[in-house]
Amino acid sequence: MIIPVIQNVLKLNDEVAAMNRAMLRDAGVFAIDLIGAPGCGKTALLEETIRRLDGVKRVAVICGDLATQRDADRVARHGNGAQVVQINTGKGCHLEANHVHQALQQLSLENVDILFIENVGNLICPVGFDLGQNVKVGIFAIAGGDDKAAKHPALVNEARLLLLSQVDLAPYVPFDQEQFRRDIGLINAHVPLLPLSSVTGEGMARWIRWLRLRHACQSPLALQVR
Amino acid sequence: MIIPVIQNVLKLNDEVAAMNRAMLRDAGVFAIDLIGAPGCGKTALLEETIRRLDGVKRVAVICGDLATQRDADRVARHGNGAQVVQINTGKGCHLEANHVHQALQQLSLENVDILFIENVGNLICPVGFDLGQNVKVGIFAIAGGDDKAAKHPALVNEARLLLLSQVDLAPYVPFDQEQFRRDIGLINAHVPLLPLSSVTGEGMARWIRWLRLRHACQSPLALQVR
Repeated sequence: MIIPVIQNVLKLNDEVAAMNRAMLRDAGVFAIDLIGAPGCGKTALLEETIRRLDGVKRVAVICGDLATQRDADRVARHGNGAQVVQINTGKGCHLEANHVHQALQQLSLENVDILFIENVGNLICPVGFDLGQNVKVGIFAIAGGDDKAAKHPALVNEARLLLLSQVDLAPYVPFDQEQFRRDIGLINAHVPLLPLSSVTGEGMARWIRWLRLRHACQSPLALQVR
Repeated sequence: MIIPVIQNVLKLNDEVAAMNRAMLRDAGVFAIDLIGAPGCGKTALLEETIRRLDGVKRVAVICGDLATQRDADRVARHGNGAQVVQINTGKGCHLEANHVHQALQQLSLENVDILFIENVGNLICPVGFDLGQNVKVGIFAIAGGDDKAAKHPALVNEARLLLLSQVDLAPYVPFDQEQFRRDIGLINAHVPLLPLSSVTGEGMARWIRWLRLRHACQSPLALQVR
């Protein structure tokens, strides 16, 4: 009796994710499911990203956490008018499509170019759940150690882009970037790795370029032209 | 049909945890379930802890990870004869009592004073599973940000000791220790917080004293005397 129940739960999740994907596609929104460990710098990255996208792209953020609305407050403070929704999962270790579906109904999607879904801080459980995003982006922190890609192959495999955050801390912690890249290459030879720092701004221009290009490629207009 | 299945799984876990607890108690072993995010410094702490306990207490370590045996290799290298077992959970986001039960059968418990169970790097899922440990110890990293206690109340509530690791990075990252302590106090007024660094050694002597005292209180002899 166990297996059918689990299959039904995942099947239902996938059906809701497909609804989300259709809503986002119809509105021309490029949606990112941002996955990383607690404290790897997801919210700091989003604050700086929104600042840099001000006047360039219209942004919305869905923040997932077990408790508190601190991330949503931070994003809203730096938001330049970004739309922000906080989801509290209670004891839930990941977002599911249903959470995102409820959040989408709080947003004016026609006024959004790029949607960031900041998943619950967790390198494991969020990977298996489709939310209706266009891409999953994985984020590792340099203070978290160079073994974390090898230890989390499912995320490396699913991600279309990997970020290495906190590179401003590189002088103060041991981290073998060559080894880290080698580990990633063995798991997923196609995923690019972008080192960056939301403190010093290193790598941020490339990240912003990637976002703008991905949104441009995503819009129905671009698809007609190309 | 869902609820009974989940209850059975947890009930089975608790039964195996009780078996583990009995085995550990009979052998006079003090067992810690060490829970923290990926990259918060669990393995580095254990390496330094084992070094300092050399000739003082006999140590064993069970390392949990999705993939690789890198942690077990690191611990074994610094091991001073510590017994080490690696558990690979595949996609499993936490250790369960059954994993630990299998690992215990690989150890000579009669030659162990303190057992560290290094759980899978995850601040959420490991909290709900009894492994048969004496205490759960939570570890937060200073590079992970001062909001992580408030965001993970279940761990703060379950832990008998909280560690704040990587305090050597305090000059390089923003972290409000007063706010962090206030958040903890609101969730669990009884749990002590010990800041430490396995790089500089700050706080390590207090941690080692705590371990020695807890092991001494745990042994059947101590219980008879007191």
